[in-house]
Amino acid sequence: LAINGDARLEQQIGFIFEVEKLKQVLRQTLLVDDKRQENDAEHSWHLALMALILEEHAADPVDILRVVKMVLIHDIVEIDAGDTFAYDEAGQVGKEYREREAANRIFGLLAAEQGEELSRLWEEFEARKTADARYANALDRFQPLLLNYHAGGDTWRRHGVRKDQVVERNRHIGEGCPALWNYATRLIDRAVAEGKLLD
Amino acid sequence: LAINGDARLEQQIGFIFEVEKLKQVLRQTLLVDDKRQENDAEHSWHLALMALILEEHAADPVDILRVVKMVLIHDIVEIDAGDTFAYDEAGQVGKEYREREAANRIFGLLAAEQGEELSRLWEEFEARKTADARYANALDRFQPLLLNYHAGGDTWRRHGVRKDQVVERNRHIGEGCPALWNYATRLIDRAVAEGKLLD
Repeated sequence: LAINGDARLEQQIGFIFEVEKLKQVLRQTLLVDDKRQENDAEHSWHLALMALILEEHAADPVDILRVVKMVLIHDIVEIDAGDTFAYDEAGQVGKEYREREAANRIFGLLAAEQGEELSRLWEEFEARKTADARYANALDRFQPLLLNYHAGGDTWRRHGVRKDQVVERNRHIGEGCPALWNYATRLIDRAVAEGKLLD
Repeated sequence: LAINGDARLEQQIGFIFEVEKLKQVLRQTLLVDDKRQENDAEHSWHLALMALILEEHAADPVDILRVVKMVLIHDIVEIDAGDTFAYDEAGQVGKEYREREAANRIFGLLAAEQGEELSRLWEEFEARKTADARYANALDRFQPLLLNYHAGGDTWRRHGVRKDQVVERNRHIGEGCPALWNYATRLIDRAVAEGKLLD
């Protein structure tokens, strides 16, 4: 929508309007109260708030503004590439290519230096090699565990997911946030004991 | 859920789990694509991203981490107090008292210094007296304008809202972000010209 002749502002508003679509990308996680599927936008909001609240538990000192930026944008590529369920091995094929194309298109809506900053942050998140990225990834893995447990384990049961898969898939929470992994292992054990998760 | 004996972490996770409810608080704004009502969590995500992208247009220099925190938590009180439509004058009665009680309860789930930081940020947002709060409020007003316009003006029409009300209600966007107010006034004029908003 070309509206007032400030090309840079219009580019930015174009991006802001495009990412509106993230509210339509549904995840496998169910919300605790009404059991509808969570969308990527509300998930990203939840992670950003978690990042702020739990900063003291990060494995290594983090730059919290960078972490918050990372989790706010980490799923934007799914506007084009869709959400791939964590335990769907077939769905992982070609995922990296699809997501990189999506990053090029969507972050490319912004002026070069702004788009490149977000693109680099997204790649850093995916690579999980820096303290900021490890902490951000820990939050991204822990949040669905917490919701799945409190929603009664329906998502795990529907997909026949077992405890060893959940442990294997989420173990790296410990690299970014040991206290959360400690909490998570106890939550997983409790889920098994309560019949919410297969042993 | 008392799970591993780390009282402070459990308090934090208790808060994180409680604010999950923000995903159930519905706003009057309709999403552009499927015309369902937007919820407060995805709205807050959108504002946080806007804050980062549009920082250069803030009326005065801002501390962007503080602004992002502010917009991430600015609607949390609505978990208890509910969303009040911007043009609902009757709904404004008692709103301040309801929201303050909600802030006490919800931010009070955290340890004192953490809860108080968020509580003060929320009050600062509401008071609109600092550069950070004025910029955050500008984003909070601009975002529904952008969505209402692109969703065809249904929200305005359903409530019989007129152009002069929209201008009056949103004028202070200019105090926090003049470039956005410039854009908004043109968007409002275009909405009137296209029959999306009453003159």
